[in-house]
Amino acid sequence: MTDEAAIRELITDWAAAVHAGDLDSVLADHDSDIVMFDVPPPYRGLRGIHEYRDAWPPFFDWQRQGAEFEIVELDVTAGADVAFAWALLRCGKQEDFEANPDSRLRLTIGLLRRDGRWVVTHEHHSFCSTD
Amino acid sequence: MTDEAAIRELITDWAAAVHAGDLDSVLADHDSDIVMFDVPPPYRGLRGIHEYRDAWPPFFDWQRQGAEFEIVELDVTAGADVAFAWALLRCGKQEDFEANPDSRLRLTIGLLRRDGRWVVTHEHHSFCSTD
Repeated sequence: MTDEAAIRELITDWAAAVHAGDLDSVLADHDSDIVMFDVPPPYRGLRGIHEYRDAWPPFFDWQRQGAEFEIVELDVTAGADVAFAWALLRCGKQEDFEANPDSRLRLTIGLLRRDGRWVVTHEHHSFCSTD
Repeated sequence: MTDEAAIRELITDWAAAVHAGDLDSVLADHDSDIVMFDVPPPYRGLRGIHEYRDAWPPFFDWQRQGAEFEIVELDVTAGADVAFAWALLRCGKQEDFEANPDSRLRLTIGLLRRDGRWVVTHEHHSFCSTD
């Protein structure tokens, strides 16, 4: 498998784990020093795997109200030892899509190859600001 | 100069060009196929250097009302041929900082080494959603 294919699989599996609310699998390929820019504050981002992990249960609660988390476009740039990817996702509840069908969650992911495997060291999640 | 130092300089120079409203310098190290997730819509992002370029003049107009665009934290992960960086910026007018002193523009940048020089192929700019 090429690095690009391996990273596509890592991200696709991660998104499926997010949608399933499977926290262990969400964390499986993430670095202890990850920096995540999440949709809500804190403005400085979430620093380290403990802050990253703690962000997911409230999201899973919201998802259980019927929200989707579906990758619709994914682009991977893989180098020998560093890679990044961007993606657009349908992320919301039915009422959100009815109000705003084109809205997408934007996602950028940074990865590092360490000891022969790819690990995620950075994530940036956002929606456009429309005000 | 190491790759990390070269990329820090590229990003610092770019941010200075943004703040100066110097469009040619803003575009100097950017790929023709760049994909930018900007703060406002379109939701699909801006595709290609022409759409990227056209996003800046309205931002420069807004900046002339007294807005800052200042990097306060920058972290670079440079590989042999691919790199990414994240940054936090003070971006706003005096009234914005009075209302919300901790608010930061979050920035993630993806780069590729091509013909011996680093070029930006992806940018993701966002503010937290607070609603």
